Amino acid sequence: MSGALRVIPLGGLGEIGRNMMIYEYEDAAIAVDVGLLFPDAEHLGVDVIIPEISYLRRDPSLLRAVFLTHGHEDHIGALPFLLRELNVPVFCSELTRGLIEVKLREHRLLDGAQITVVEPGQRVSVGPFTVEAFMVSHSIPDAVGFLIETPLGDVVHTGDFKIDHTPVMGQHTDLTRLAQAGADGVLLLAADSTYAEIEGHTPSEQIVADALDRVIGSAEGRVVVTTFASLISRVQMVIDAAERHGRRVFVTGRSMVNNVAMARDLGYLRSRPETFMNQRQLASAADSKTIIVCTGSQGEPTSALTRMARGTHPVVAIGEGDTVVLSSNPVPGNEKQVYRNIDALFERGANVIYNRIDAVHVRGHAAREELKIVHRVVRPRYFVPIHGEYRHLVLHRELAVELGMDPDDALILTDGDVLEIDGEDAAVVERVSSDYVFVDGLGVGDVDEFVLRDRQHLATDGVLVVIAAVDRHTGRLTRPPEVMSHGFVGPEEEPALLEAVGELVSDIVGGERAGRRDWAELHDSLKDDVLQLMQERTHRRPLVLPVMLEV
Amino acid sequence: MSGALRVIPLGGLGEIGRNMMIYEYEDAAIAVDVGLLFPDAEHLGVDVIIPEISYLRRDPSLLRAVFLTHGHEDHIGALPFLLRELNVPVFCSELTRGLIEVKLREHRLLDGAQITVVEPGQRVSVGPFTVEAFMVSHSIPDAVGFLIETPLGDVVHTGDFKIDHTPVMGQHTDLTRLAQAGADGVLLLAADSTYAEIEGHTPSEQIVADALDRVIGSAEGRVVVTTFASLISRVQMVIDAAERHGRRVFVTGRSMVNNVAMARDLGYLRSRPETFMNQRQLASAADSKTIIVCTGSQGEPTSALTRMARGTHPVVAIGEGDTVVLSSNPVPGNEKQVYRNIDALFERGANVIYNRIDAVHVRGHAAREELKIVHRVVRPRYFVPIHGEYRHLVLHRELAVELGMDPDDALILTDGDVLEIDGEDAAVVERVSSDYVFVDGLGVGDVDEFVLRDRQHLATDGVLVVIAAVDRHTGRLTRPPEVMSHGFVGPEEEPALLEAVGELVSDIVGGERAGRRDWAELHDSLKDDVLQLMQERTHRRPLVLPVMLEV
Repeated sequence: MSGALRVIPLGGLGEIGRNMMIYEYEDAAIAVDVGLLFPDAEHLGVDVIIPEISYLRRDPSLLRAVFLTHGHEDHIGALPFLLRELNVPVFCSELTRGLIEVKLREHRLLDGAQITVVEPGQRVSVGPFTVEAFMVSHSIPDAVGFLIETPLGDVVHTGDFKIDHTPVMGQHTDLTRLAQAGADGVLLLAADSTYAEIEGHTPSEQIVADALDRVIGSAEGRVVVTTFASLISRVQMVIDAAERHGRRVFVTGRSMVNNVAMARDLGYLRSRPETFMNQRQLASAADSKTIIVCTGSQGEPTSALTRMARGTHPVVAIGEGDTVVLSSNPVPGNEKQVYRNIDALFERGANVIYNRIDAVHVRGHAAREELKIVHRVVRPRYFVPIHGEYRHLVLHRELAVELGMDPDDALILTDGDVLEIDGEDAAVVERVSSDYVFVDGLGVGDVDEFVLRDRQHLATDGVLVVIAAVDRHTGRLTRPPEVMSHGFVGPEEEPALLEAVGELVSDIVGGERAGRRDWAELHDSLKDDVLQLMQERTHRRPLVLPVMLEV
Repeated sequence: MSGALRVIPLGGLGEIGRNMMIYEYEDAAIAVDVGLLFPDAEHLGVDVIIPEISYLRRDPSLLRAVFLTHGHEDHIGALPFLLRELNVPVFCSELTRGLIEVKLREHRLLDGAQITVVEPGQRVSVGPFTVEAFMVSHSIPDAVGFLIETPLGDVVHTGDFKIDHTPVMGQHTDLTRLAQAGADGVLLLAADSTYAEIEGHTPSEQIVADALDRVIGSAEGRVVVTTFASLISRVQMVIDAAERHGRRVFVTGRSMVNNVAMARDLGYLRSRPETFMNQRQLASAADSKTIIVCTGSQGEPTSALTRMARGTHPVVAIGEGDTVVLSSNPVPGNEKQVYRNIDALFERGANVIYNRIDAVHVRGHAAREELKIVHRVVRPRYFVPIHGEYRHLVLHRELAVELGMDPDDALILTDGDVLEIDGEDAAVVERVSSDYVFVDGLGVGDVDEFVLRDRQHLATDGVLVVIAAVDRHTGRLTRPPEVMSHGFVGPEEEPALLEAVGELVSDIVGGERAGRRDWAELHDSLKDDVLQLMQERTHRRPLVLPVMLEV
């Protein structure tokens, strides 16, 4: 395998989230991004899902460094789990460092971590790789892509990006650097596919700035704005509008408070000294002079906006005259909880402005016409679509082919595929393990499909515990069976059902059917017969747990 | 209350689904629609959610008849549960009858049911009401709204509708009848709000017919089309395109097979005799001559399309050369499972066409410009927005006010509100119970919030059962405690944790802390201490079920 570049996605290809790409040459590798995936409803009780790194674990000297494109959870969230095992140097931009430091501190890994801030244009050499960050526009400041020089040629890894010619915080996607790289020759382009379904261009953040200014300028009462806590440019827009219209800003919700504080410390937010106010000042401020910036754009159950919607926020009670702006879209899967909040806020009498009825949000990813620009200027030898569900990868690959790329040179990888590029050719040569690793509480990887299946079973029909205490000498019940259920039926129906179970158990263990004295058989029979009875009576299948005690 | 019209939504206001509206005058009432709501992820194990009818149960002679607008589940699905208790006459259109008969037969209620088909224009008198159906365009044939004459004036109840000037199956929304009613004077308009967020007009079904014809005409291999099983007009388009392009149609998926058969029997689908083919004919048909129409547009786990996506369909194996068309949008909440299917079909090599990349679906509800037309021609004295989540009701009411309606005459109701209209005024005078009634298996209403909370608990961290058998005389354990868990931790971690629990229990029950002999206290202590230990060790909180047996 000597002399070949190996490209190995350990996450993020074929799904949104858990982004992690390995670039490997001979005995050295670097990782770009180490993200997490938020669990679906089916991942019962799972907190987050992280990439499997057993491939890296096999040879702990292989991985030499991690490069992070930007500070979103799907790109940095699994970093603590990686560093705990492989404490390699981390390279990232200033704001990204701010965000990962919070995270590493929580995991008590900050002291040992080796984090280096790199500016766009600066070059870092790691083993056979020389890596240079280039600026991209995305829905968080300080986002970059990487230009990776390898012995076989250059790789352009975009990370998440869009092309915004009028960004609010001055961060353009550096098409000049990309064009220069293209002119010098690019071996491989790995580019964001998240919005490969969307025709045309993603509108500029400026559209949102205008809409927010209009909404805030025309509101008579209080204005509440929620957005992603990492979307610092959106918070800047709110600050700008507040100052233009003589309002002051109160920030609430843990991650929003933390991110705003950090962004102000690092100089990412510009404001007048008096613009921000504290809770005491909020209490005495006129509604017409107030803006509240808060968490909850995704309807998260414990967020500030959800508390306001439910009337349980300790400081802010929403009512007539309030304007609430959701400057965000629901992430797929969150639609119901987001719209439930919107409905509840309307019910409280607020005027709610959200993306379906005004342009108060734009996306952070490149649509098809933007992708075409990048392909045109980079003109790579090979192309791998990254960041997206499988259909996005397919559509992005088709786009590349439409632009004239040889179909054999545009390759769809999924997690675990090992793409090997040598001087001649590019091909998937093997597959490494890249399973979901579930994190639940302190456990990393101990919740597996079987545990989830049990939870699913419990979630659907509850549990029924049957305890039969049997005399070890006579084989007879020493007392009536104990039967209890949880999550199975309501309190009115429960007693009769449990009594029926008790009778059945007495019958099986102590009655005429007690001839069967094989312990395991009796156990199975208890389980099957109780389940069958319950299914007949209720059409439900609780998890039946029979316990036989010899006493 | 004499002399007043009472309008009582028992479902469907403030949410999509479970539609049921009561119109009551003196001692008589009619219901329009009796629908169900599909459960959310949080309604663990619940099959469907139906309206609470305790209001009607109080005086079983109150309800005189049910009128159904169309055959979608959110308008007819709870009919069996109503008729089981209050077997009143049912009036509906021909196709709706076909659909409810299937349902009533399953519930063994068909024999006793009194179903009468009414044609648009036909008038039915029930107590003080005279009801006339008028044709509307919607995503199922034979949809109607109702014009309800009451002693106080006429009510227009639209049901679900859109305005389609070029419908595929000839069914227009009867604006002429509505205009006539408006000219004669309408007391109350109750109109569909589902798409009150959407600007402009919903495109005509003809757009979809054109797109399907283009896709089917240009496909080289097999074409698979999925849509809602009730969307008969869409199936007609596929038949038309098949016949134009020399293909034959195979139908798969239970509800699609049933609905197509029923629609053909009743004359709702026009086709040449040879157009449909059976499984044997499919096996010998060329791919280029084949269209498969199937269930699965919502990614339902057991549907035909999901089986194809997973490679488990008994007849159809999807691969390179196949074109799969999803002629539908994901219903909110179903996005993930729909896109998972699309991704899996792409992975199998199919070309997948869905609404984000081609116009293969249009919605079935009126957008804002269509709503304005209805308001303009009906010109009601009072307006109540129906069918929609709360924000849709608010936006629809605002639309009515923008059109010139007095804000006091446009009233937002939510489920259970009793709107009373007399000769002078309209006001909400009281509120009746209209809770969710959960159906789970055979149980109707026995699953309540407490059962769901237990299921949620079990779903998140599983269950841990601890059994301590205690000698009734000595108070000492007669044997080591039994400890078992399900859905809690994986098989590698489980033994050590269960052993630790066993030691703790022995310590509490049999050890030096055994001084506390109060049975209930000991039980609580077991539960609390075990939970605390597990939380320390795992950061999880399983449902701990301690059982103390005196033996």
